[in-house]
Amino acid sequence: MKIPPVKGTRDFYPPEMAIRNFIIDGWKAASLRNGFEEYDSPIFEYLKMYQIKSGDEIVEQLFNLTDRGGRDLAIRPEITPSLARMVNQQINALPRPIKWFSVPRLCRAERPQKGRLREFFQWNIDIIGVDDVIADAEVIFTTIDYLRNLGLTDKDIKVKISSRKLLSAVLKNIGIPEKKLDSLYVLLDKKAKLPDETFDKLLAEQVSDSEMAGKIKTFMGIKKVSQIKEKVGFDDRVDEAIDELAMLVDLLGRMSVKNYCQFDPSIVRGLAYYTGIVFEVHDVVGELRAICGGGRYDNLLKDFGGPQISATGMGMGDCVLEILLKEKGLLKSKQLKLDYFVACADNQYFEKAVELTARLRLAGASAAFSYKATGLGKQMKQASANGAKKCIIIGEEFEAGQLAIKDMGTGEQELVAIEDFFEKINN
Amino acid sequence: MKIPPVKGTRDFYPPEMAIRNFIIDGWKAASLRNGFEEYDSPIFEYLKMYQIKSGDEIVEQLFNLTDRGGRDLAIRPEITPSLARMVNQQINALPRPIKWFSVPRLCRAERPQKGRLREFFQWNIDIIGVDDVIADAEVIFTTIDYLRNLGLTDKDIKVKISSRKLLSAVLKNIGIPEKKLDSLYVLLDKKAKLPDETFDKLLAEQVSDSEMAGKIKTFMGIKKVSQIKEKVGFDDRVDEAIDELAMLVDLLGRMSVKNYCQFDPSIVRGLAYYTGIVFEVHDVVGELRAICGGGRYDNLLKDFGGPQISATGMGMGDCVLEILLKEKGLLKSKQLKLDYFVACADNQYFEKAVELTARLRLAGASAAFSYKATGLGKQMKQASANGAKKCIIIGEEFEAGQLAIKDMGTGEQELVAIEDFFEKINN
Repeated sequence: MKIPPVKGTRDFYPPEMAIRNFIIDGWKAASLRNGFEEYDSPIFEYLKMYQIKSGDEIVEQLFNLTDRGGRDLAIRPEITPSLARMVNQQINALPRPIKWFSVPRLCRAERPQKGRLREFFQWNIDIIGVDDVIADAEVIFTTIDYLRNLGLTDKDIKVKISSRKLLSAVLKNIGIPEKKLDSLYVLLDKKAKLPDETFDKLLAEQVSDSEMAGKIKTFMGIKKVSQIKEKVGFDDRVDEAIDELAMLVDLLGRMSVKNYCQFDPSIVRGLAYYTGIVFEVHDVVGELRAICGGGRYDNLLKDFGGPQISATGMGMGDCVLEILLKEKGLLKSKQLKLDYFVACADNQYFEKAVELTARLRLAGASAAFSYKATGLGKQMKQASANGAKKCIIIGEEFEAGQLAIKDMGTGEQELVAIEDFFEKINN
Repeated sequence: MKIPPVKGTRDFYPPEMAIRNFIIDGWKAASLRNGFEEYDSPIFEYLKMYQIKSGDEIVEQLFNLTDRGGRDLAIRPEITPSLARMVNQQINALPRPIKWFSVPRLCRAERPQKGRLREFFQWNIDIIGVDDVIADAEVIFTTIDYLRNLGLTDKDIKVKISSRKLLSAVLKNIGIPEKKLDSLYVLLDKKAKLPDETFDKLLAEQVSDSEMAGKIKTFMGIKKVSQIKEKVGFDDRVDEAIDELAMLVDLLGRMSVKNYCQFDPSIVRGLAYYTGIVFEVHDVVGELRAICGGGRYDNLLKDFGGPQISATGMGMGDCVLEILLKEKGLLKSKQLKLDYFVACADNQYFEKAVELTARLRLAGASAAFSYKATGLGKQMKQASANGAKKCIIIGEEFEAGQLAIKDMGTGEQELVAIEDFFEKINN
């Protein structure tokens, strides 16, 4: 009986797995290089945990299940709620700052499309307990450190940075009442994806005063922090937010990654929980969805029943990233690379191949041999397919205690005494 | 609002994550050393896929869900059905032998108990397409290679080996009809966990002839392959199965791991799908569940709608293994080890610490600094907590272009010119 895989999921055969490992091993290495420690949460949590952060509409995007005890659970669509739960559980025992990363497998019951699947992996980095823009700078630097390490330059990608604090201050200064902010954020977040006319119409529905609406549009189009005061006006709150952005830019300059960054007030981030600096990384061509996004969320731990503690973080999925790396020719794969393939010039040496291979592995080298008695040509082909660096050929010389060792790169072959060979390996 | 984690799941804080990484990184390294390539399947599959292999009773152990399209799905409780599906999908394109490994996260809706959780990780290795006991030897060798590498000796663990082919031949030779075999396997598999009286009673229910039942018990108690013929009789099929076991033992001897292995006819493995060599690894003290188990399953791919292809494999969970390693004092953890912690002797150097840290990271070193202006003592404490190998102290000497570098292991401190230092790092 043949059964297909579920729509929107991926089978990782060795070639696809090698690509996934290339991406995820890079995430891990960049995290460790930047001083983050790894954590992970269970693959499922209580359903209501996701409703706290994202409301009832999130339930539509969840794979939810009921266990035999009647508990309403869901496969995690993101890890931040679990992070908040875990930090709150041990809030007094954890040394601060909490600087954690994770590479969770996540599931969302969405319609699969380009760069968006129902099952994916996401790199998360978070700094909790630092009420200073230095933490935002660290998160942005770490993000760029990873992307630059892959070979992506400032001609390929840009980190678009804004501030919820600034946006909220500007909107209030323009005259938008506090209670209208959240729904306005959702609309402004969609601006880049909407035709101008549609955006204008939707904005007019929320902000009937055309002068106020005009000012909002002017703000959204500003390219430099220094133009804000002149073009849309200011007060103490706007000033404070501008100062914070200026400090961030100064720090990113000191970290020598300013060339990757630009101010972009159209970056809003849809979710209500952001409270300060927000950013997204986009491909310069602008054909893809955001590569990643993040920002400051100072109220989330409190929303999850803990104390009020500052937090800032970033999440990057593997799907859009993989498309971009493929387009740029930067997608490498970590495929099997054997140190040795042990071949027999004659089938009578089969047992010797078994012995030698086991000895190599016990010495810590990676090694394999052919399970079937076949010709040397076929064995050499398998050695190549296994990515073997060297091929050991057991032939007549074996009777005299020697092995023929072929370098699969150069094609050169040499005779070596068996015990000399193993002495070298064991050292 | 405080929400707890779900019963039977684990939160991996950095210390627990470091242990999980120690175990899983070892699994991966042993797999690659032995020439296996990594694959992975989706976290959920169609529910019916699990019913094919294990019948309807498996549904009781599944976390099942229905998606918005009305599809009956389940979180994977094991990866072998997905492996069979994936191999069948590309059966003509995949070069053989297929020698794959995976380290999937799995979920089972069981009552949590010692060494058994509702969410766990499992190392799987499989060789598909090799109809020869050499493949079983490779699987057993790879298993031992991992365990031995951890420091477990033949005084700590034993690989108990038997053969379904032998068991079936012996039972038929004794006079048990073919159709009774499957239910008898289930009972024999439980022998070690049942009191003798209970076993005898249950055996009598299935085998009413007391002479036949006695022979089965005699067979289950045999310690050496050579005693089988004399103690329970033989025919061609028994002979053939004994020869295969003898070949396996010879190969394991050549691989120099025979000291870890012993013949044990009480190893049956509950599942109906095993067809040849079967084995389990147990702690010698015998206090824990099996550390792992595996064997040959030549019909599974066919059961999943593919051709009849030989296969053999092994699965090892992380829970029992972790308990054993803890007991033996062999549980290490891969915790954060920074190359450098950058400290300031005076707060005026904060920006310099930011610059230096970023420069170190861009050069590929792992580095961190304190986000808060605190005393040098507190910074040194954070350096220790971060496992820093060296601490760079920016002080007065910085004005003269020098850094104080302290070795956190030896406590020694030296002054180095900044540019010399980076030249060394960059090389």
